[in-house]
Formats: sequence, C-alpha cells, structure tokens
Amino acid sequence: MLKLLKDVGELEFIRYIARQIEGKGTALKGIGDDAAVVSINADYVMLFTADMLVEGVHFLRTQRACSIGHKAISCSLSDIAAMGATPKYALITLGLPKKLNFLFAKNIFRGILKTAKFFNVEIIGGDTVCSEKIIIDVFVCGTAKQQNVILRSGAKYGDCIFVTGSLGNSQKTKHLHFTPRVEEANFLTRNFKLNAMIDVSDGLICDLNHILKASKVGALLEESKIPLSKNCFLNDAYYTGEEFELLFTLPEKYSQQLISKWPFKRQVRLSCIGRIMPQKFGLKIKNKKGIPKKNKIYGYNHF
Amino acid sequence: MLKLLKDVGELEFIRYIARQIEGKGTALKGIGDDAAVVSINADYVMLFTADMLVEGVHFLRTQRACSIGHKAISCSLSDIAAMGATPKYALITLGLPKKLNFLFAKNIFRGILKTAKFFNVEIIGGDTVCSEKIIIDVFVCGTAKQQNVILRSGAKYGDCIFVTGSLGNSQKTKHLHFTPRVEEANFLTRNFKLNAMIDVSDGLICDLNHILKASKVGALLEESKIPLSKNCFLNDAYYTGEEFELLFTLPEKYSQQLISKWPFKRQVRLSCIGRIMPQKFGLKIKNKKGIPKKNKIYGYNHF
Repeated sequence: MLKLLKDVGELEFIRYIARQIEGKGTALKGIGDDAAVVSINADYVMLFTADMLVEGVHFLRTQRACSIGHKAISCSLSDIAAMGATPKYALITLGLPKKLNFLFAKNIFRGILKTAKFFNVEIIGGDTVCSEKIIIDVFVCGTAKQQNVILRSGAKYGDCIFVTGSLGNSQKTKHLHFTPRVEEANFLTRNFKLNAMIDVSDGLICDLNHILKASKVGALLEESKIPLSKNCFLNDAYYTGEEFELLFTLPEKYSQQLISKWPFKRQVRLSCIGRIMPQKFGLKIKNKKGIPKKNKIYGYNHF
Repeated sequence: MLKLLKDVGELEFIRYIARQIEGKGTALKGIGDDAAVVSINADYVMLFTADMLVEGVHFLRTQRACSIGHKAISCSLSDIAAMGATPKYALITLGLPKKLNFLFAKNIFRGILKTAKFFNVEIIGGDTVCSEKIIIDVFVCGTAKQQNVILRSGAKYGDCIFVTGSLGNSQKTKHLHFTPRVEEANFLTRNFKLNAMIDVSDGLICDLNHILKASKVGALLEESKIPLSKNCFLNDAYYTGEEFELLFTLPEKYSQQLISKWPFKRQVRLSCIGRIMPQKFGLKIKNKKGIPKKNKIYGYNHF
C-alpha cells in the first residue's frame, strides 16, 4: 500500500533525510540543531538556518503584511540566537500570487527589512517566484567564535534549566509579534558558559526533550516555576509552539549570578524551571504537591 | 486603484526591493548578481544563493521526483558556478502536501542528494513544512578566492562573448536534466581571467543584457555563431530561459588559447558568439547577410 506523508509524519521524514546524509563531512554541525555550523578560520564559524512560512499554515492573508514579514525573518533570527551566535546576513525567497496586491507584497518586505535593520542584519539576496499561496523562506547566516557556539547536546546532570519570557500565549497573538532573543542570547554567551540551548519553536516539553535526547540526560521540571502568560494554562505553556523563547541549561553554581545580573528584568522574565537529571530519570514534572510525574511528549507535526 | 503584482511585473518588484536595501553594507556584493559575496578573511569569500521551485510553475507532479530534485539543486549550483566559485554546502527547504506519496517525497530528496554528492556539496540543514503544492527552496553556499570571483559588471569593449553548450531546447527536456556547469566554470577560473559571467536562466538575450547593463557596454552577436540545439530555431535560443549554460566575456587575446585548451570538447560545446561593443552601440545581432539589427530584449516574467 502507498504510504502518504501524513501517515508517516514529519519526524519520520526528517529522520529519513538525516539517515541519508549521515557520515562525516567538513561541517562542524549539520542537521540536528537550530542551525548548521561551518568553520571559516581557526577561531570563527559561520552558522546557517532557513525557515519557511506558508500562507494558511503559519499566517493568514487577513493578517498585517508587516507582521507576517516580521515573523518570517524572526524565526530564523531566533535559530541563530539559540546557537549563541550573531545574525549577519539574510536571503529572502518569496513565492507570491500574480493577483496579490502590490502594496501587500511591498509591506511583507518592509516588515522583513525593518526587523533585519533593527538587528543589524543585511539582506543580500534571494529569489522571487510566482505561486498560488504566499510563501516566505528566510535564510540567515550568522557568525560566532567557535568556542561560544552552544549546541543542544551539552546539558549536564545538575544543570539548572532556564527559560526566557512567559509561555502559553503564542497561538493568540505572540507568534506574529514576538521579539527574537538575539540580544539576550548575546548577553548570555558574553557573560556565561551555557551548556545547552534551543529556542522554543515546537513547544517547551518537545524542545526540552530535544536537548535531553541530544545530551543523553533527563530532567525534572517544577510546575510552580513555569512562567505562564496571562490567562494561560499549564498545558498551553507545555505544548504551544512558536514561542521563540530561549531554553538553556547552566551549571548550578552560576545560576544565582545569572539571575542577579540579568539586565532585561523589566521586559523579559528569566525563570529557572527545573534541573537536568541522569538519562534514566527521563522527563518528569513536579506538581504543586511536590510529586514528580511523567508528562506526554509531543510537539507540532506538520503532516 | 489597487495595483496587483501582475500589473507591475517581477522586475518592478525586484527593483523596489533593491531600492529599499540600497546603501553600503559589509557584503562585497549584494542583490544584482547570480550570488551574494561576503568576505571571510583576507583572501577568501563566501557566496550565497537561493532558488525556489514551485509545482505547476517549474515542474509538474507527473514528472520524475528524482529529476525534480536534481533540477532544484542544480539551479543554485549553476548560480555559484557563474560567479567562478565552488559550491560547498546546501540547505534544503521543502513544502510538501500532507497527501503526497511518501516515496515521491523521498525521491525528490534522493535526486537532490545524488547531485549534491556528485559535486561534493554537503547538505547541512533546511526546513520541512506543509503546503498544498510542492515547494523546493535550495540555498547554496560556495567559496572562492576573492580575486577569482567573476561579476556581471566586468565586461570590456573588445571582449569576445562565449557561451557553453547549445541553446533552445530547454522547455522540452533540458530544464529537468541539465548539468550545472560547475566543472567548466572551475576550469575557466583556474586558467583564464574572465571579465564577466552569468548563467543563462532568463534567456540568452535577456541575460546578456544583464551583463551589458551592469558593465555599461554594448554587444554585437553573430546569428551564424549561435549554437542551436537540435530542431531548434534562433528565437528559441535567444529567448528560452532555464538553459543554465555559462555566458561569459574574455579579452580577445586569450580567445584562441581558450578554444584550443577547452577540455570538455566531447560533451560541451564552446562558442564565441560575438563581441562586446561600446555602450552606445546597444545590443545588435548580425544576420546571415552580415547586417546588424536590434533585437527585442525580454525574458521570463514570473507575474
């Protein structure tokens, strides 16, 4: 029987791709983190990431064109930030319907450009094609000192688990208006030696699980420490994707110092939500009565 | 009155984008050539390009999945080659319908991977999303010595104009099965100092005109020298896009040497099709009676 993509799911397809390209290449990090990492000289690396938004899936044509553009580039900026790197250049590929209002197309680009300029990112190329739905694919290239790059795979038993901002509100408004945590990531890598980092794009539990798998560790979260957005429930905070907050781990001994030095207090919360545990512990969440329980692990599946 | 994209056309939209991002950045070359160029150290540069293919526009679902994948990456490889650079890394972004046959999706990727491997290009990342039509956006990163990069803007009065391969057949079969001229470009930059180069993606006349405008020169082509594909007419050779041949200019004094040294004679023709002229000459074509005439300049418009 013919299998369809929706029968196998997105993860299975990505696993197929990853298996096909396994083996040693010259890249320091290929598929399997927020961005790919390539060495450019003895000290520095370049990082590459691409994120595609499709009308009807990630945004609607009834939404503001500027906000759509902002979201498109911010997803990629968030990926670069989550690697501890600084975004530098962007290529923008646009698929646009012939009958799209010219002003709407211009405003999508304006939204992209405004956010690019805010973060000192240069738009240096791209492609424009005709398509029935609006498609925006943003490729971003960043740079970092090799020693400052933070992968998903470095979390260690005993680390504190931190998350920026508050969670659960993404599906309502945040997913179009979030600020990629470029400045926060910059502060973190300049002042602390993080062990692992990811951005929350699939959902807190799902993305934490990416860190746990890559680092071969477990985790214990505390329900009472989860930073909930206004009018949101715990399950929203656990499973809502497109939050684009930073989720990272840091050795416990630096944890107090980080909290006291955090310079973004007024705009962006910083919460220690749990601890890294040995792998066999798995992923558990302590409820308000102090009892650790296993939680379902799932994230957004495109197919 | 509201203007639609199809009323203003693709070029006008790209001109709008180019105006928005004008001004000096740190990139050596931004929008306006086959790829963007960024300095990575005193001698070397990195080049970036992205090309998006959309089902129904660039290919049909009835065509072979492997060939579609091959075409998708080859367009970007051709862009890097046309800059005189070597492609190194690729990111693949796929928009796929939920109800797409899993095997078809796998075969698209296999087609991409096979061609990537043939040219020693590593696939290091990308994105997968759900969309109604199949969308493939390939970003390729290449490297070159800065002094070897060939822009569109270097053509000089007196240069010979060369084109690889034969022209006119693209719409029939070639556009799915062409070989990006990576090896040929590599040979050219290692052995000669080309003044300008582009790949024929919009059509011979249209792409030559890109060189003429960027270089502020004119050109005289010779009808009798145009390398026609089998069963093709001159107008096919002039205006068919997606040929992905190299079109370049070289000082006349090296022209004989190039023709005699060309190591690909058996597989890939090399034709001197005309001369670069002063800008005020414009673009003319000498017909078989030896009379130079102006030709219409147009290329593919997506909207």
